[in-house]
Amino acid sequence: MSKGTLLITGGAGYIGSHTVRHLLEQNERVVVLDNLVFGHREALPLDRVSFVEGDMADAALLEKVFSEHQPEAVLHFAAFAYVGESVTDPLKYYRNNLAAPLTLLEAMQRHGCKRFIFSSTCATYGDPVRIPIDETHPQAPVNPYGASKWMLERVLRDCGHAWGLKSVFLRYFNASGCHPSGEIGEDHNPETHLIPRILMAATGEIENITVFGTDYATPDGTCIRDYIHVCDLASAHALALSYLRKGGETVAVNLGTGRGFSVKEIITTAEEVTGKKIPVSFGPRRAGDPSELIAEPKLAKEIIQWEALHKDPREHIESAWKWMSGERHGRYSA
Amino acid sequence: MSKGTLLITGGAGYIGSHTVRHLLEQNERVVVLDNLVFGHREALPLDRVSFVEGDMADAALLEKVFSEHQPEAVLHFAAFAYVGESVTDPLKYYRNNLAAPLTLLEAMQRHGCKRFIFSSTCATYGDPVRIPIDETHPQAPVNPYGASKWMLERVLRDCGHAWGLKSVFLRYFNASGCHPSGEIGEDHNPETHLIPRILMAATGEIENITVFGTDYATPDGTCIRDYIHVCDLASAHALALSYLRKGGETVAVNLGTGRGFSVKEIITTAEEVTGKKIPVSFGPRRAGDPSELIAEPKLAKEIIQWEALHKDPREHIESAWKWMSGERHGRYSA
Repeated sequence: MSKGTLLITGGAGYIGSHTVRHLLEQNERVVVLDNLVFGHREALPLDRVSFVEGDMADAALLEKVFSEHQPEAVLHFAAFAYVGESVTDPLKYYRNNLAAPLTLLEAMQRHGCKRFIFSSTCATYGDPVRIPIDETHPQAPVNPYGASKWMLERVLRDCGHAWGLKSVFLRYFNASGCHPSGEIGEDHNPETHLIPRILMAATGEIENITVFGTDYATPDGTCIRDYIHVCDLASAHALALSYLRKGGETVAVNLGTGRGFSVKEIITTAEEVTGKKIPVSFGPRRAGDPSELIAEPKLAKEIIQWEALHKDPREHIESAWKWMSGERHGRYSA
Repeated sequence: MSKGTLLITGGAGYIGSHTVRHLLEQNERVVVLDNLVFGHREALPLDRVSFVEGDMADAALLEKVFSEHQPEAVLHFAAFAYVGESVTDPLKYYRNNLAAPLTLLEAMQRHGCKRFIFSSTCATYGDPVRIPIDETHPQAPVNPYGASKWMLERVLRDCGHAWGLKSVFLRYFNASGCHPSGEIGEDHNPETHLIPRILMAATGEIENITVFGTDYATPDGTCIRDYIHVCDLASAHALALSYLRKGGETVAVNLGTGRGFSVKEIITTAEEVTGKKIPVSFGPRRAGDPSELIAEPKLAKEIIQWEALHKDPREHIESAWKWMSGERHGRYSA
């Protein structure tokens, strides 16, 4: 089980940068490819990673990266992830999340690189027909974001049959939290995720947050989600890599805690953590928001020996608050 | 209902060229875009169409074509269609059949061109769970060729929701036959379709044909297919265009006759038409060949007022034989 170089696309982004940090702690050799459209150079320890600024759709650049580094495996994070935008501008999502990775895969095929760890999503399931959602749940994505990820899963399976590519599809539920050091964290522009928005409201960076829908069939009427800590996502990538290094076959696993929390519960916990009252306005439901999304995470334990360690969203909020109230104020650059 | 210019991708190919001819007879103005990888310049009446040699993935070329011609609608034929090759080289198919059309769609969106007629396929259904296959049959393609077409259907639907694109997905069953004039026809290299291969065996161009599987659960043990005449496909495109011009919404319709014929029946008929004994060898089943594929074509009649006129495969074979035994011997170039 030799440890070769890992190519990490989107490694300067939220989940990518946390995974890079985790992999470096495990003495992995890492090359990050990121076009910095959403990633942050400051999220990377530039003394310890090879950083290539560029786009994975750039075939000449990919050829150069593969020739120079001969990566053993690719961890593919680079993607656009604004669900609402994907509905209004689908071609942008199919271009970036589906067509661009073909260039990456073409380079992998040419260079005989046959391990792929893919940031997939619970959005590939669409509206759940049962809760918790296991990996046999039908995949019927309701927006182009989810569809673009779902299609790439199919492409990867077909590459498996054709030329032996082995992939792990990590279907993330709701990523949240930041590194406990407070040194790296979540910095999206625009920010649409619930916890950072709540904390931005706590610091006064935004006026208030809007809760979309209070009439769902849930105990308090607000949507329930399975919040998975970004450091747990990072460790899942390392374990997926071990699994492939041991000869594992292509598999899809959910990354979630198996527990759900409502929007109101998250707000209340954030008020406790920050000691501040969060200004909230209530709006109508958003199209395409299911009432409940909760993972059945058993398979990930069975197949890649992974389990979420940070199951309490209080911990997610605390780490995010450390990042948000720390010296960077939740931003890599002013 | 103004008649604007039609952009026809893959217009120099088999089905594309027959459709171009039909549209010209209906006094349509036609621009053909074809990279001539599989198309034939000789299949086009170059005095009556604008021909652009090039690739639809070439964004600068597409911008030029759209600026110059401001097409009212796109008829999109350009695709790779070797099912077996798609299994061994999936990226080639996702690149050409899925990623390349994104460039076309991006140009359409920029230029406000909102009508799309798409050469889809019964391969989007996968192994049939019932016969005949109607448009509500589940779509579970079993090879990357079918998957690439199925994914593009989804992309087109999403573009419909986002920016008002209206599409007709024409799900072809087994295209066959040639123009009755004998002037244009089917010329693939390699040729994998049954009827032309039979006729190539009749002329001695190939030694024999192989029948894959004689133990299917069909009356004579060979596979049953729904053969749809290329001139019927051509007329369906014209009717789909009328439907969109009248304000029709996005819809998928099967193009088939509703009748199936076995491989052995086709061979026997070809022997009658040609007056020659066809040398046949029998091989094992091919992976991914369902025993029976028969369309339920009612919806096409209801929605676009189309119906197959050439339901008897004898007619398909006769027209193909005219092309194959005519002065071109079934080839556009030596």
